[in-house]
Amino acid sequence: MMIDRRFPVRLDLQQGTVDMSHGSGGRAMAQLIAELFQRHLHNDLLAQGNDQALFTPPPGRLVMSTDGHVISPLFFPGGDIGCLSVHGTINDVAMAGARPLYLAAGFILEEGFALRDLARIVASMADAANEAGVPVVTGDTKVVERGKGDGVFITTTGIGVVPDGILISGDRARPGDVILVSGHIGDHGVAILSQRENLGFGTAIQSDTAALHDLVAAMISAVPDIHCLRDPTRGGLATTLNELAHQSGVGMQIRESAIPVRPEVAAACELLGLDPLYVANEGKLIAICPAAQAETLLAVMRAHPKGVASAIIGEVVEDALHFVQMETDFGGSRIVDWLAGEQLPRIC
Amino acid sequence: MMIDRRFPVRLDLQQGTVDMSHGSGGRAMAQLIAELFQRHLHNDLLAQGNDQALFTPPPGRLVMSTDGHVISPLFFPGGDIGCLSVHGTINDVAMAGARPLYLAAGFILEEGFALRDLARIVASMADAANEAGVPVVTGDTKVVERGKGDGVFITTTGIGVVPDGILISGDRARPGDVILVSGHIGDHGVAILSQRENLGFGTAIQSDTAALHDLVAAMISAVPDIHCLRDPTRGGLATTLNELAHQSGVGMQIRESAIPVRPEVAAACELLGLDPLYVANEGKLIAICPAAQAETLLAVMRAHPKGVASAIIGEVVEDALHFVQMETDFGGSRIVDWLAGEQLPRIC
Repeated sequence: MMIDRRFPVRLDLQQGTVDMSHGSGGRAMAQLIAELFQRHLHNDLLAQGNDQALFTPPPGRLVMSTDGHVISPLFFPGGDIGCLSVHGTINDVAMAGARPLYLAAGFILEEGFALRDLARIVASMADAANEAGVPVVTGDTKVVERGKGDGVFITTTGIGVVPDGILISGDRARPGDVILVSGHIGDHGVAILSQRENLGFGTAIQSDTAALHDLVAAMISAVPDIHCLRDPTRGGLATTLNELAHQSGVGMQIRESAIPVRPEVAAACELLGLDPLYVANEGKLIAICPAAQAETLLAVMRAHPKGVASAIIGEVVEDALHFVQMETDFGGSRIVDWLAGEQLPRIC
Repeated sequence: MMIDRRFPVRLDLQQGTVDMSHGSGGRAMAQLIAELFQRHLHNDLLAQGNDQALFTPPPGRLVMSTDGHVISPLFFPGGDIGCLSVHGTINDVAMAGARPLYLAAGFILEEGFALRDLARIVASMADAANEAGVPVVTGDTKVVERGKGDGVFITTTGIGVVPDGILISGDRARPGDVILVSGHIGDHGVAILSQRENLGFGTAIQSDTAALHDLVAAMISAVPDIHCLRDPTRGGLATTLNELAHQSGVGMQIRESAIPVRPEVAAACELLGLDPLYVANEGKLIAICPAAQAETLLAVMRAHPKGVASAIIGEVVEDALHFVQMETDFGGSRIVDWLAGEQLPRIC
């Protein structure tokens, strides 16, 4: 690394910790940016070194989305807050059918946080961004006193470009449309719970955290008339279906037997008194499309590595009250309502 | 307001507080968004109700910038974290010469935070966004447990469009260029300090928090060849000049007598042992332009309501070591270095 006269002594990334000066705007912050953030996240736009990144997007419609990440613990089976913060925002952009272009990242660090952990998190963000082909082009760092934060919070914002002819929105579900999910639900929430204090139980369940924009690209290429896409994160499948039903002014009818849940996730949920329908996912999506295209869409999803366990789980129906109803494994029917209260705080 | 079957009981915006369920992704969060965020920040894009906002920007180059806001206290003379979070990001976008288009806002709330205060902050954001003509089009809300946050943190991200022919960047300062500042420095930092615990002193100094994009638009209209613009926030004028000197590979020579500082700010700084050169501003900018255009630029800045106290404060010089040097009021010269350590934590 080039010697920089501003920083005669290198950051101690093994034993060092975040202190208030790292948020001061001065020399210590410049060093943290140079020796930690830029070292991992380097790209031409970030290297512009201004308080904003400059680029020329392709012409057409853009989308913008932002997501704060406050997950606890910061490291969990299958990922960490770093890759999660990249995947989460890429997915929110992709759920408009958009191709994600760029990310911005805002860090709120707690005084005393280990620089080693921060470096690990930023390296994980960089890996996730590289793998997805969506660079972090601008950022910001703030520091709060010990006891006023919790290690690190990361707010990522993404923009993406929507291909011509694509119009995917939560208000486009129509009676007769078919509802699909891209794989097993509940993995992320159960993986996090397995790590929480006093809730440790032996499980090999990993978070499904993943960027879904490539799956979405394959889907819209085959079925441009997809009506809705949404990732069932906080609140899980049940809450996301209720959001879409409300937004489109329709009802939904789903079949419990059709919803993919891993046996070990089902078992963990039973043990913990949770309903997998409400448990968060970070690498799954719900798609709603016209019935005539549903089998084509399902085949495309199953052919993609991130959608191998995709399934058709139900249909959109007319319902002035916008209920989501489920035919249960026992042949009965129940209303699947919005998540009420807090099932799993700080799950993302 | 329309009755919504999801929320039979309205949020208590007088006595209510944030609880963990407001970050759950479920019904309580939907209610917080509907009855507090959307009520204040309503616009067509936010009303799309998706996890991302869709729009068609004008063709050309865009900029993107993000800024976390962790200021303490949340309310201060001249503003609050709400308007600050709008102004700060608008300014970061505008410092590329860009016209800001849209904002995204990510909230990290602490359990127990008064909904009344949150509503006041969001109303202030809305007022600032309306006044600036830059809507908040998408957002996110997370909640952390009591003692893991500090009331509210707000990360705002903005995008803007750069007019054709404009190329403003921190690496464009050239020897011979002239350095201008748009008004009195240090107001924001001193206003915040006046409110901090145990540092209360009688002062009428208000934060200068303001959106500067309209000032910038007037400046680039008159002088399209402005080389650098940057807002001297954390670290103050001194640190920002050092950043620009480092980035452009030049030195700078400034004159203490030319730098506008209000007498009451100077007095407060003296009392507190602070140097106004390092105190944060939230409504000022530094401009660097060719000498031939400096007087024109100064006149345009002074003619604008947000630049009436603008001044030429020095020149860019050749210096392989990239020092910022200042001719003092007493005729001597001193090096004005980067801010070292933390002068004023959580100033923005």
